[in-house]
Amino acid sequence: MFDFSSKLSAAATGQAKPYGGLPPYHFVGGNIDEPTVPVEALADAVAKTLRAQGHAMGKYGMDSGSQGHLPLRERVAEMLEGRAQMRVDPGEVLMTSGSLQAMELVNRALLDRGDVVLVEAANYAGALNRLGALGVDYVGIDLDADGMRMDALEAALADLAAQGRKPKFIYTIPTVQNPTGSVMPIARRREMLALAARFDVPIFEDDCYADLVFSGERPPALHALDTEGRVIYCGTFSKTIAPALRLGFLVAPWPLMGRILPLKTDAGSGALEQLVMAEFLPDAFDVHVSNLLPMLQEKADALCAALDEHFGAAAEYERPVGGIYLWVTLPQQVNTDRLFQVALAQGVEINPGSQWSVDGAANRHRMRLCFGHPSIETIQAGVAKLAKACFEEFGVPERGGNLAR
Amino acid sequence: MFDFSSKLSAAATGQAKPYGGLPPYHFVGGNIDEPTVPVEALADAVAKTLRAQGHAMGKYGMDSGSQGHLPLRERVAEMLEGRAQMRVDPGEVLMTSGSLQAMELVNRALLDRGDVVLVEAANYAGALNRLGALGVDYVGIDLDADGMRMDALEAALADLAAQGRKPKFIYTIPTVQNPTGSVMPIARRREMLALAARFDVPIFEDDCYADLVFSGERPPALHALDTEGRVIYCGTFSKTIAPALRLGFLVAPWPLMGRILPLKTDAGSGALEQLVMAEFLPDAFDVHVSNLLPMLQEKADALCAALDEHFGAAAEYERPVGGIYLWVTLPQQVNTDRLFQVALAQGVEINPGSQWSVDGAANRHRMRLCFGHPSIETIQAGVAKLAKACFEEFGVPERGGNLAR
Repeated sequence: MFDFSSKLSAAATGQAKPYGGLPPYHFVGGNIDEPTVPVEALADAVAKTLRAQGHAMGKYGMDSGSQGHLPLRERVAEMLEGRAQMRVDPGEVLMTSGSLQAMELVNRALLDRGDVVLVEAANYAGALNRLGALGVDYVGIDLDADGMRMDALEAALADLAAQGRKPKFIYTIPTVQNPTGSVMPIARRREMLALAARFDVPIFEDDCYADLVFSGERPPALHALDTEGRVIYCGTFSKTIAPALRLGFLVAPWPLMGRILPLKTDAGSGALEQLVMAEFLPDAFDVHVSNLLPMLQEKADALCAALDEHFGAAAEYERPVGGIYLWVTLPQQVNTDRLFQVALAQGVEINPGSQWSVDGAANRHRMRLCFGHPSIETIQAGVAKLAKACFEEFGVPERGGNLAR
Repeated sequence: MFDFSSKLSAAATGQAKPYGGLPPYHFVGGNIDEPTVPVEALADAVAKTLRAQGHAMGKYGMDSGSQGHLPLRERVAEMLEGRAQMRVDPGEVLMTSGSLQAMELVNRALLDRGDVVLVEAANYAGALNRLGALGVDYVGIDLDADGMRMDALEAALADLAAQGRKPKFIYTIPTVQNPTGSVMPIARRREMLALAARFDVPIFEDDCYADLVFSGERPPALHALDTEGRVIYCGTFSKTIAPALRLGFLVAPWPLMGRILPLKTDAGSGALEQLVMAEFLPDAFDVHVSNLLPMLQEKADALCAALDEHFGAAAEYERPVGGIYLWVTLPQQVNTDRLFQVALAQGVEINPGSQWSVDGAANRHRMRLCFGHPSIETIQAGVAKLAKACFEEFGVPERGGNLAR
């Protein structure tokens, strides 16, 4: 057979394995609870909208150009006003193939090799990997229970200014931060905007989890508080409707949007996703999300209870107020890169803290546990197995389930 | 307002305008006839499959990993066997967000700046633009009515070998070439494979229009005739179902596929598109395409008749045997870059030949006319307007509609 290995580009460094299925106790990835996917409502909505408007799929971009289906952009603008207090013109909205594409477009429009950006010190691994692949330096800003710390941000901005380096943007997940789950209070949001203005830095606000605050009460987006047009914003339907439905959105002021559009070279995002969400959003979205929240709260509670039961004081975490992730600190002697391996051999998959943070070495005793997808029974059984694997490898936790091991 | 212009990357060179709608006589782009989009069948299929399998959308990749919905890959493999005589394992198929993504992935996996590839001299502008943006040299190989000429290909391969340059691949659209519409006979396909073997070059076969041979009789794909695994293959449902349905596929032998998958960083292509096509393909696809072909033939005939009537001998073309494009040669004094502008002012949009060819200057008297989207009435009226604009600007055609002007 022909050998392509001598033909590969410098970029083709990765090597995938054939898909082998998910392990039974799967605490990784932004997956959601399968029974919550609103398949009946989606089926009705997509059939209705296809019959009414499906012929427009005969042309690229339907009748809306490269920014995506205009009726959906109008509904997204209304949703953002209702949920995040944002005032957005549909002409400033771009529908994307998931919010990851929004992130890649913003990165591509603003970042060159050697640039620097500021990010939360514990962070979405996919964001850090993408910045790294672009040759961009990222400076981690410490977090507390209210999100990115403003004293740390100010110090980093001043430090870079002293070096004569101007960051291209501050990347932040202010509402239900990934992985810590923190929600930034409104006063701190105003502080961040003031700092961004003082140091003349844009903000890239990733609001992918903001619909998942369990109480349903969500602070205004940074974008909503911004009077200067310095906030670029992205969101998604992955966490509320379904992650396999690849549909996100980017909000950017027009002059920047006009620069971003030529970089979206995919001839448009999927029409079915856009048509169905234009139908689903005004009628069914709010009800669906309200139904979702208590179920998520229940799963978060189950995960915390299982950790308390099986890890006891060895597992420290902030009780989540939203989202589908828990950021867990274990005793220093636990190396979660190693725990990942031994747990996976038992069918339990976790995210090692080293991958979910700017300073990997300092977070090697932490892990991210995702509770969106597994059932409550799976959460309980999986955490028990994880505790057992952790004890066998590291002697931690010493006591579990009120029993000395 | 915040000014992003000082923050832009080196890549952000384009500047889009807000969408202004399509002109009334729109002979550009791979759009199709809107009434032919099978909305009823798609609505039934998507509603059925969502109810049966939609909950799997709760996880990225559903249950199939990063290559896309396995049942669809199985159906695609069956379709390729039935239609293109290919023998493909579903493990060698990757579902993509349109065939453009397949092209971008192949380019990214195989091409570095300064590499060289061989392409048909008249070509899809999007392919040439992408190669140019990557800093890749592309050598145009002349075409005749049977597609890429093998004497020209052999000469170019020998010439590059003499320079010590090894092309990364031959990019070809052997069946319904874009823009010439040629279909390469089977004997020439075998010649191409033999030349590729002799010079040790892979082939990237773009088969996006192959379902649209009006007779329904299509030669085996190059991939089907390849015994060495040197052909990478892509296809799409854009031209048969709907272009706004962003769903294409890439076929590559596993070792290369394993290198390509890490470059697909979009967390999967759209689930709705994949679910609906897995349902639609086995039951409805062949019937739909058979119904489509006589309608396309009729439109091709209408375009040829309108050109004959309004341009007379001034418009030369090969009568199309498939597809949705016509490549038209006008007298040398016609500059279609200029014709594009004066026609657009009259509401008629065409593709100038300079953009659809490797040697732009030598093709400035040619144009591509797309007949997939406009109705027969629009084709007739649009060509009349185009002839009038062409006469007013260039004095060509001197006679039209059996009347001296």
